[in-house]
Amino acid sequence: MPATLSSTNRRALSGVLSATVGLLAVMVVAAESADDLKPPVGYRNWFHVNTMIVDKASPLFAALGGMHNVHVNPVGEPALKAGGPYPDGTMFLTDLHDFAVVDGSYVEGALKGLALMEKDSKKYAATGGWGFQFWAGGDPAKPAVTDATKQCFECHQPQKAQDYVYSTYIP
Amino acid sequence: MPATLSSTNRRALSGVLSATVGLLAVMVVAAESADDLKPPVGYRNWFHVNTMIVDKASPLFAALGGMHNVHVNPVGEPALKAGGPYPDGTMFLTDLHDFAVVDGSYVEGALKGLALMEKDSKKYAATGGWGFQFWAGGDPAKPAVTDATKQCFECHQPQKAQDYVYSTYIP
Repeated sequence: MPATLSSTNRRALSGVLSATVGLLAVMVVAAESADDLKPPVGYRNWFHVNTMIVDKASPLFAALGGMHNVHVNPVGEPALKAGGPYPDGTMFLTDLHDFAVVDGSYVEGALKGLALMEKDSKKYAATGGWGFQFWAGGDPAKPAVTDATKQCFECHQPQKAQDYVYSTYIP
Repeated sequence: MPATLSSTNRRALSGVLSATVGLLAVMVVAAESADDLKPPVGYRNWFHVNTMIVDKASPLFAALGGMHNVHVNPVGEPALKAGGPYPDGTMFLTDLHDFAVVDGSYVEGALKGLALMEKDSKKYAATGGWGFQFWAGGDPAKPAVTDATKQCFECHQPQKAQDYVYSTYIP
């Protein structure tokens, strides 16, 4: 993975995220533990917000390639439907999976990692009230985010009007 | 939509479904009401089984194109993880959405319809114990399945070893 997003990638990311979901930039830089967040359990029973596939044709593929399944916990679900803002305790969890193309269809593969945005307006005041983390393979021992501002928040900042969340409610 | 699947499409469908999910053939033929099934509510809070996109390059695009988000209800969730068989009351619900390709990424669009497989081994004994329905736009007044054997079960029959379900548990 590249250590930072190029300006081209930032533009492409902006385009993709404007169209649908966020929670992605956390995957860009791999480093050591930011130990205050833990991978949540039961997220596949949370409300399914949307799915996005970053395909090989995307300039973001090297950093963000895969199928992104986005879920929101019960705390944040009403706020998602209202377009934000989100109460403390809200969690957006993306399970990132590999994918394969079979006869022109994109099918889900193995888990690549878990990305979390968790709202705590005081604790994470410096990053819009959101804590960010990404765990490679979903392994709690493999957090990838050490500088949430650079690795995550810089790309979420343009979404201030939606409480820094790219995802919107799609009925 | 074509009235039936061509042999080419059947082969392609088999390939796609073997790779991931089922519940698709219900969408092939549009007709009148099969009024014993109703669209479930709350399915986006059920366990998210997987997502598949049938893209324009697929021979199935005309009939099945879109993003298929598959969910299973709490009755069937343990059986999914065990590889089947499924108890009566199990429901698999696919919400089918449009998609767009933005800078090489596939992003979710508007709802196209809801596809349901519901298990009742006695009531639906003629179709492997499963009832099938598809509602255009998710509208209860627009069911599309009138002959579940031809429209649905014929393509699920090869999956008898998995209780006629194509989807498998992807951790």
